[in-house]
Amino acid sequence: MHGTPDFADWLAICNLKAAYCRLLDTKDWEGWKALFTHDCVIDTSASGGTVEQGRERFVAMVARSLAEAKTAHQVHSPQITLDGDEAQAVWAMQDRVVKGDFALTGYGHYHETCVRTPEGWRIARQTLTRLIVEMDRPGA
Amino acid sequence: MHGTPDFADWLAICNLKAAYCRLLDTKDWEGWKALFTHDCVIDTSASGGTVEQGRERFVAMVARSLAEAKTAHQVHSPQITLDGDEAQAVWAMQDRVVKGDFALTGYGHYHETCVRTPEGWRIARQTLTRLIVEMDRPGA
Amino acid sequence: MHGTPDFADWLAICNLKAAYCRLLDTKDWEGWKALFTHDCVIDTSASGGTVEQGRERFVAMVARSLAEAKTAHQVHSPQITLDGDEAQAVWAMQDRVVKGDFALTGYGHYHETCVRTPEGWRIARQTLTRLIVEMDRPGA
Repeated sequence: MHGTPDFADWLAICNLKAAYCRLLDTKDWEGWKALFTHDCVIDTSASGGTVEQGRERFVAMVARSLAEAKTAHQVHSPQITLDGDEAQAVWAMQDRVVKGDFALTGYGHYHETCVRTPEGWRIARQTLTRLIVEMDRPGA
Repeated sequence: MHGTPDFADWLAICNLKAAYCRLLDTKDWEGWKALFTHDCVIDTSASGGTVEQGRERFVAMVARSLAEAKTAHQVHSPQITLDGDEAQAVWAMQDRVVKGDFALTGYGHYHETCVRTPEGWRIARQTLTRLIVEMDRPGA
Repeated sequence: MHGTPDFADWLAICNLKAAYCRLLDTKDWEGWKALFTHDCVIDTSASGGTVEQGRERFVAMVARSLAEAKTAHQVHSPQITLDGDEAQAVWAMQDRVVKGDFALTGYGHYHETCVRTPEGWRIARQTLTRLIVEMDRPGA
């Protein structure tokens, strides 16, 4: 649509999402928060969640809800289109969440708008759609 | 073997496979069909399937067999070699298929020949090999 | 930190890790061994394992321990920084191991130092950290 993105931009957007997963799963909440714009919009309504606005509130909510959980969020095969200082990215995703006697495996897609800021690319908007969600019990 | 592929070609072939997974799992059968050459050959004989020729017949067969299923096909760490207008790609893959009381998780590799056409890169030949296939029951 | 890596180097390091997974899971032990430097250090102590030095000893140990197992190691969303002939890579990973009545699914990260050699990029040091490890029984 907008031709091939520059490799540096494409890679920076891929690295942003890699950091998103790694800092989320290792619970580095300050590092994770810095990956979003201040006024980011995170929409999980299509997968049974809410629409959250603002990274302070959103990150505090996630940190609280995952405090007792072990998580692995993994992302795959991005499709990224670039238009100047804005990029649209679709990532396939799988997540595993284990919390006490509860466990969940989900599959779906992140649909994201990323923006170029003076500090680098940041996530400005994220929508999560789901293909499959299954609940079971944790392994031993 | 053929040196480093051009980033634009490499990325186009990656995006083709990302679209393959996403359009398959979201059941956009017309969009999915357009990713193959008209006379494509799809060989799943190494994993208990058949050899299908021609995208019309192949896509109709897949659409029929997955009509009642939820699926997630995810692909990882491609190795792509390029030779002019033809590319060889090997993708690690994982799939999850849930259909009624039946569920399957598989791991393996797609081995593909992609060709450059006037409409962009297309899948001309695909062979699926399996490392592990496990059947269980869907989660709640 | 060191700017955007050259696409050729970035891709070579990605292909090295793709080969690592594929040759490991297809048990091509000679091919797999060639991906490491002779004096590589493989540290799985953070995930309950050992620190192994030297590819001969390490590969023999892995080949022996996986002789009866089916495995799928899959890697995702690398973060690679390059400094001349040395690169640091962090890969998200998932592995599934099935051996008799035993099965394991793990999630974590490979932290690797890769070095440029006359034969191409090689893995010189690898540390595995874990987010989640779950043991269960194989599917049918």
